[in-house]
Amino acid sequence: MNEHRSLKPTSIIIFGATGDLAKRKLFPAFYNLYIDGRMPEQFTIIALGRADNTDEHFKNYIKENLEQFSRRKMKPEDWEGFQTHIVYFQHQLDQENSYQELYHKLQDFDTAYGVRANRLFYLSIGPDFITTISNHIKKTALASDAGKDRIIIEKPFGRNKQSAIELNHLLSQTFEEEQIYRIDHYLGKETVQNILAFRFGNSIFEPLWDHKHIESVQITVAEEVGVETRGAFYEQTGALRDMIQNHLLQILCMVAMEPPASLKAGEIRDRKVDVLRSIRRITADQVEHYAVRGQYGKGIINGVEVKGYRQENGIAEDSNTETFAAVKFYLDNKRWQNVPFYVRTGKKMKEKHSYITIQFKPLPHSTFSDSPHLLSANRLIINIQPLMDIRLQFMTKKPGLSLVLEPVEMIFDYFACQEDTPEAYETLLLDALLGDLTLFMRSDQVEEAWDVVTTIQEAWQNNKDISFPNYEAGSWGPEESNALVERQGHKWV
Amino acid sequence: MNEHRSLKPTSIIIFGATGDLAKRKLFPAFYNLYIDGRMPEQFTIIALGRADNTDEHFKNYIKENLEQFSRRKMKPEDWEGFQTHIVYFQHQLDQENSYQELYHKLQDFDTAYGVRANRLFYLSIGPDFITTISNHIKKTALASDAGKDRIIIEKPFGRNKQSAIELNHLLSQTFEEEQIYRIDHYLGKETVQNILAFRFGNSIFEPLWDHKHIESVQITVAEEVGVETRGAFYEQTGALRDMIQNHLLQILCMVAMEPPASLKAGEIRDRKVDVLRSIRRITADQVEHYAVRGQYGKGIINGVEVKGYRQENGIAEDSNTETFAAVKFYLDNKRWQNVPFYVRTGKKMKEKHSYITIQFKPLPHSTFSDSPHLLSANRLIINIQPLMDIRLQFMTKKPGLSLVLEPVEMIFDYFACQEDTPEAYETLLLDALLGDLTLFMRSDQVEEAWDVVTTIQEAWQNNKDISFPNYEAGSWGPEESNALVERQGHKWV
Repeated sequence: MNEHRSLKPTSIIIFGATGDLAKRKLFPAFYNLYIDGRMPEQFTIIALGRADNTDEHFKNYIKENLEQFSRRKMKPEDWEGFQTHIVYFQHQLDQENSYQELYHKLQDFDTAYGVRANRLFYLSIGPDFITTISNHIKKTALASDAGKDRIIIEKPFGRNKQSAIELNHLLSQTFEEEQIYRIDHYLGKETVQNILAFRFGNSIFEPLWDHKHIESVQITVAEEVGVETRGAFYEQTGALRDMIQNHLLQILCMVAMEPPASLKAGEIRDRKVDVLRSIRRITADQVEHYAVRGQYGKGIINGVEVKGYRQENGIAEDSNTETFAAVKFYLDNKRWQNVPFYVRTGKKMKEKHSYITIQFKPLPHSTFSDSPHLLSANRLIINIQPLMDIRLQFMTKKPGLSLVLEPVEMIFDYFACQEDTPEAYETLLLDALLGDLTLFMRSDQVEEAWDVVTTIQEAWQNNKDISFPNYEAGSWGPEESNALVERQGHKWV
Repeated sequence: MNEHRSLKPTSIIIFGATGDLAKRKLFPAFYNLYIDGRMPEQFTIIALGRADNTDEHFKNYIKENLEQFSRRKMKPEDWEGFQTHIVYFQHQLDQENSYQELYHKLQDFDTAYGVRANRLFYLSIGPDFITTISNHIKKTALASDAGKDRIIIEKPFGRNKQSAIELNHLLSQTFEEEQIYRIDHYLGKETVQNILAFRFGNSIFEPLWDHKHIESVQITVAEEVGVETRGAFYEQTGALRDMIQNHLLQILCMVAMEPPASLKAGEIRDRKVDVLRSIRRITADQVEHYAVRGQYGKGIINGVEVKGYRQENGIAEDSNTETFAAVKFYLDNKRWQNVPFYVRTGKKMKEKHSYITIQFKPLPHSTFSDSPHLLSANRLIINIQPLMDIRLQFMTKKPGLSLVLEPVEMIFDYFACQEDTPEAYETLLLDALLGDLTLFMRSDQVEEAWDVVTTIQEAWQNNKDISFPNYEAGSWGPEESNALVERQGHKWV
């Protein structure tokens, strides 16, 4: 992961190259890697699209998008170099001869490189097409060199445990597990990657990192946006599937995992699966006690009146899809016995804010008994976005003539000295080019994560008797979310 | 200590009221306490001096001094009120009738107050006069009410263990131990008091605070000044007596003490004495291994050439008095087994800086084995003066595409929000007015502290064969100071 070797020639094949993700994330990421000199010396991005398109026309489209979405300003000389690596390729997902043409095209590149190039397939398409593409890739032997060929797929990885198992099985017909890069862009964020550095690069946090010292852990991923143009998709998904099964559980794994012996991908992925396996499974009748769902009604965000979920485009008037979910997890292992892990996520929340709170236990005995109400327990806050910092809250003497304590914060601002940092996709695409699987999800991780949420999924599906909407846009979710943590004497912070 | 009750009428009797300490510290402290409304409603400062002086003349002198030394700007209305509480009293330290006059004067105040006032005697005089004054106070029954009368004395509390025992015995003839306030102004500093709040007001530091997690502790009190006008006194004292026996050992006690059950003075003083008792005593032939002395020669500080110690006023040309001392202490108790406590202090050092460094152990195993040389062990730095902050040094992911770690600091600036804080003397004088002994030294603390340094004292006294000067003004002391810590594989930080 932290080793940069010179990269072999690579053909990058993007399925869905005219789509939104390619426009906003993939091309900008490749472009910035290129500027940083992190792309292979020889590479071609083969942009696959259904339409008839000239290279020139497509490149102009990419250029315009880069001007809007690249984190670094476009410079003519950079673009001049970069654009020579792009070719457009008209392709029909469901037609075998289209794959055969692609096969020859890739062979042409190999010939030009004088070597069988690595092949990186990026499936930036809806999940329904994975089967088709995978089958064709197998049939045409496009990715037959397990040591050189890789496929990146985007979530959702199935809709539940069963479909995830099926998808993994399907992929395994064409690819070895080591060829499959299941991307969760949250894992590419600097502040998320830093969790490992913070925990295992220091000697002073690990002794505090257990049930003896930690009262609870909270993970919040709050979005200010609603479903936007994704209404139809979101109706079939909801917050539990869309966010908790992947992003939030992955973050939970990084907070809770045992120290890995090394940074080897297998080692870290093993430790993460251990966490998922240790999460206490609940029964159907416990769901109400462990999980809360919500859907936003109309409300006010930043002073502006906004619609409710049921009024958004593509949403049923009586939709029961949850736009908010909060779950209490317990990990049945030695380290985390009885420490609740509260996770919550929602759309149209009061503010955009993703963060982790490690709430330490209060003092067993206060020497400062004269002012016990003033003693707040220690708290470590890891802000993921848009704030990117680490805060340690502790008590100190209030300056003055008496020994009175007050809570203060020590802050480390992650980007105080460096504003220009790579985006998650840059990190993850580089890792895929390098063949580093660490930040990608292995099949067993995906399946275990589905297993963790299965009972909740089913209970919510079976019980449509829920009074939605139950929270106002611009709030922190339904009242039940507070009750979920208050039952243990805690509160969201 | 953190309880403010309404104070009884008090007569404050200052011996040596025309001296330097009264001018710079005592009157400014009383004045600022007065502005803060922390003085008793009824109080009189009886300023004792040998010279014939009118009240008016003395008050003018005090006013001028306040304009120079008060931390808050003088306002006419404040001064008008404050000056009515000052009287000058011509007094001869060695004449009994002078004490009898004082007795009647104090009775007059009692009559005016309509109650026997509390009496606070401040001995701001050389140690040679303590015996005389104490005997006369006893003979004239000036401080006969043990519940109301207190005496504050300044260091030095003896010159060695034997003389400290004698001094304590002498004082005990006149005063109960609870009446005696041995002042160490270092203990009044906000940043020093905060050590207790930091350690015992938080749950996350105490689990790390032992030999399992801490590699070494360093305490540095570096002065930029030389001996200034105190040459004659300093010749007889030296750094070990002047600084280590009191200030540095007191700070060491606060860092190393067990958690007190409460903030009661007796409880805290007990825990401090425990630390002093646990310090490993060494034999004469071990002194060289545990302690280093130095004396500054000429050098350059802040670009200015300065004299060596032997060239200062009042210093012998062949003086062997140490102006620098560094000592390695071990505490033979469960918590601190094998953790060296390094203390050092010196005059004419590179810069004025008092601070404590808690050096944590390195990681037992580095997950990040690719860059082991980059992993610095964690460090907590408590800056006492002139910087007043707490810094936690830890490793974090360096922003960028690879997982490379770099050391960073989290900082809590103690006075970021509050520039105007009380001086140490304000805190300590208020505590004395309130009858709170916590921050003052009990007789057994003083005697134990002397006991700790006795062997070093004697060895240095007996062995005059030392090649002074051995460090340049403007440096960090003699080379042997580095060797002292390097023998354990450490270094001063």
